[in-house]
Amino acid sequence: MTNETREARVLDAIRERRELVNAAIDEELPVQHPERLYEAARYILEAGGKRLRPTVTTLAAEAVTGAEPMSTEFREFPSLDGNRVDVMQTAVAIEVIQSFTLIHDDIMDEDTLRRGVPAVHEEYDTSTAILAGDTLYSKAFEFMTETGADPTNGLEAMRLLATTCTEICEGQALDVAFESRDDILPEEYLEMVELKTAVLYGASAATPAVLLGADDDVVDALYQYGIDSGRAFQIQDDVLDLTVPSDELGKQRGSDLVEGKETLITLHARQEGVDVDGLVDAETPADATEAAIDDAVARLEEAGSIAYARETAEELTNRSKEHLRTLPESGSRELLEDLADYLIVRGY
Amino acid sequence: MTNETREARVLDAIRERRELVNAAIDEELPVQHPERLYEAARYILEAGGKRLRPTVTTLAAEAVTGAEPMSTEFREFPSLDGNRVDVMQTAVAIEVIQSFTLIHDDIMDEDTLRRGVPAVHEEYDTSTAILAGDTLYSKAFEFMTETGADPTNGLEAMRLLATTCTEICEGQALDVAFESRDDILPEEYLEMVELKTAVLYGASAATPAVLLGADDDVVDALYQYGIDSGRAFQIQDDVLDLTVPSDELGKQRGSDLVEGKETLITLHARQEGVDVDGLVDAETPADATEAAIDDAVARLEEAGSIAYARETAEELTNRSKEHLRTLPESGSRELLEDLADYLIVRGY
Repeated sequence: MTNETREARVLDAIRERRELVNAAIDEELPVQHPERLYEAARYILEAGGKRLRPTVTTLAAEAVTGAEPMSTEFREFPSLDGNRVDVMQTAVAIEVIQSFTLIHDDIMDEDTLRRGVPAVHEEYDTSTAILAGDTLYSKAFEFMTETGADPTNGLEAMRLLATTCTEICEGQALDVAFESRDDILPEEYLEMVELKTAVLYGASAATPAVLLGADDDVVDALYQYGIDSGRAFQIQDDVLDLTVPSDELGKQRGSDLVEGKETLITLHARQEGVDVDGLVDAETPADATEAAIDDAVARLEEAGSIAYARETAEELTNRSKEHLRTLPESGSRELLEDLADYLIVRGY
Repeated sequence: MTNETREARVLDAIRERRELVNAAIDEELPVQHPERLYEAARYILEAGGKRLRPTVTTLAAEAVTGAEPMSTEFREFPSLDGNRVDVMQTAVAIEVIQSFTLIHDDIMDEDTLRRGVPAVHEEYDTSTAILAGDTLYSKAFEFMTETGADPTNGLEAMRLLATTCTEICEGQALDVAFESRDDILPEEYLEMVELKTAVLYGASAATPAVLLGADDDVVDALYQYGIDSGRAFQIQDDVLDLTVPSDELGKQRGSDLVEGKETLITLHARQEGVDVDGLVDAETPADATEAAIDDAVARLEEAGSIAYARETAEELTNRSKEHLRTLPESGSRELLEDLADYLIVRGY
C-alpha cells in the first residue's frame, strides 16, 4: 500500500471516530444549569479539534482485543475478561482533559486565539475560563467511573489518568518557568514535552488496555507508543508553528518565537550560534510581519535547526511504531502505526 | 455534660485529628520537582486551617464501624467487609480539594489575603496559582485510588467525590454570576451555598462510609448530615465575616459587604427595606473604616437580619444532628453532633 493510500485510510479512521466522539461529547456533556458555565466548558470542544487522542483510545481498544476496526460504537466493548466496557467514556474523558488544559494554558500564556476562535478567557472572562476548566476536569473523572469495567481495572485506569493529569501540570509549570530562563538544556525541554504533551497520548493508548483487562506488557507497550508519538507530535507542532500559514494554523504563525518560547528548534539554533532572541523584532505576535517571520524561518533553516527537529520527530515516530510489535497484527494496530506517521506529516 | 465540656471535647478531637492529618499531608504531598509548583500547592495548606472536613471524615469512619475515637491512626482502618482501608487518604484528598477551591476562588474573587497570609496568586502569580490548584485537584484523585478499599466501593467513592467537585464548580459559577445581579432570590442563594460549600461536607462524611462498606441508608444519613451542617457553616461564615475582628478572621472584616456579595443576611435585609448597597461607603475592603463596618452591622442587626441568619444556621444544625440517628450510638457519633454545634459557635 502506498503512503498516500495509508494516509487517506487513517484520515478516514480519524473522521469516522471523530463523529462518534463528538456525538458522545454532546451526550455526556450537555449544557445544563448554570448554562454559562457549561457553554464555556463546551466552547473549545465545539470550536473543532481532530479528536486525535480519542482516536488513539478507540484504536487501542480494538488492537488489544483483536476487534475489527469500527466493528462496534465503543459503548459496550467486549473486554478480555468477559465484561462490556464503555470505552467511549474514556475517550471522552481524555478529550475533555485535553480541552481543560487548553483553556487553562491559554490563560497562563495570554493566548487570545484557539482553533480559530477567541480563547475562552477572551470570549467569556478569566473567572469563567478557570471554572470551565475545573468543571471539565471533574467531569472527566466522573466519566471514568462509568465505564462498567471490572472495578479493579476501573480504579487502575483512574490512577493512570490522575497521575497523568498531575504530570501535565508539572509539564506546564516547567513550560511557564522556562519563559523567564535563557539557559534551558535540550534534556529539560524534552522532559517538559514528555510531561506536558506525551503522557496524555500515553494514557490515551494505555487506559483502554487497562480497562479491557490486557496484560501488563501490552499496557506498557501502548503507553510507550503514546509517549513516543506524543513527543514526536509536540516537536512537529513546534515546526508547524513556524511553517504553516496563520489562517490554516488557527493562530498567528511564529507566535512561539515572538513570545520567546524555547523549542527544540531554538535550542538547536542557539547551539549553532544563531542569535535566537534577535530573530524577530516584535513585542507581540500581532506586531510581527509575515516577512519578518519568513526571514527568521530562513535563518533557522540555514542553521539546520528545523531539519534537526523534523528528524528527531521522525526517529521518535519510528520508535513508537516498534512498541506496537508487542501487540498481535491487526487492522487497528496498522492504523495506530499510520496515525503515528500522520501526527508528524499533518499540515496543521 | 455541659455545653462547655462538650465544646472542649470537640476542640480536643479537632486538634488530635488535625495533627494526624497534617502529618499525612506532609507524607502524601512532599515538595518535589518542579519545586515552585509544589511549594505553591502546599502554601495555603501550610498557612493553617482547622482541617474540619478531615475531622468529619475520620469521625464518620469511626461512627460507621463502631470503632472507639482515635483507636487507630486511620491508615489501616478495619472496614465492615473485612478490608483494611486507608481512610487518611480520603481525609487528605478532601482537604486538598478544599485547598484547591480556595486557591482558584481567590483568583476569581480577587481576594488578596487567606488565612492571614497573601493568597497564592499574590505570593506567587496567577499562572502558578491556577496550576497549583490543578495539581491539588489531580493529586486528590490519585489519593482516592490508594485507599485499599474494595474496588467497587473505591470507584463509588471516587464517583461521589468527582460529582462533588463538579457541583462545587457550579456553586462557584453561581456565586460569580450573583455579583452582577441584584435580584437574587433566597432559594437561589441557598442553592449556591449547597453547591459551593455543603456538598464537600456531605462528601467528607459519606465517602468513608462508602469505602468501609456501610449500607446505603447510613451513607445517605451521613451525606445529609454533612449537607445540613455545611449549609449552617456557610451561613454562619457570612455572620462571622461581619462580626469577628479582622485580625482573628485572617482577612478584612465586612469584605463581603463592601464587595457587594449577597448573603442570607443581605437578602433578608433587602426584604426588610434596608438599602444594602448604600450600607458601606467604600470601593474596596481596605478603604472601609472599622466605624463604617460597625454602623452597617448595627443597621443589619436592627433589621433582624443577623439574628435571622443565626437562627437559620441553628435550625440546619439541629436537622443535621437528627440525620445521625440512623447510626448506632457511639462516642464518635456524639462528637459528630458536637462538631455540628461547633461549626456555628466557633469564633472564627
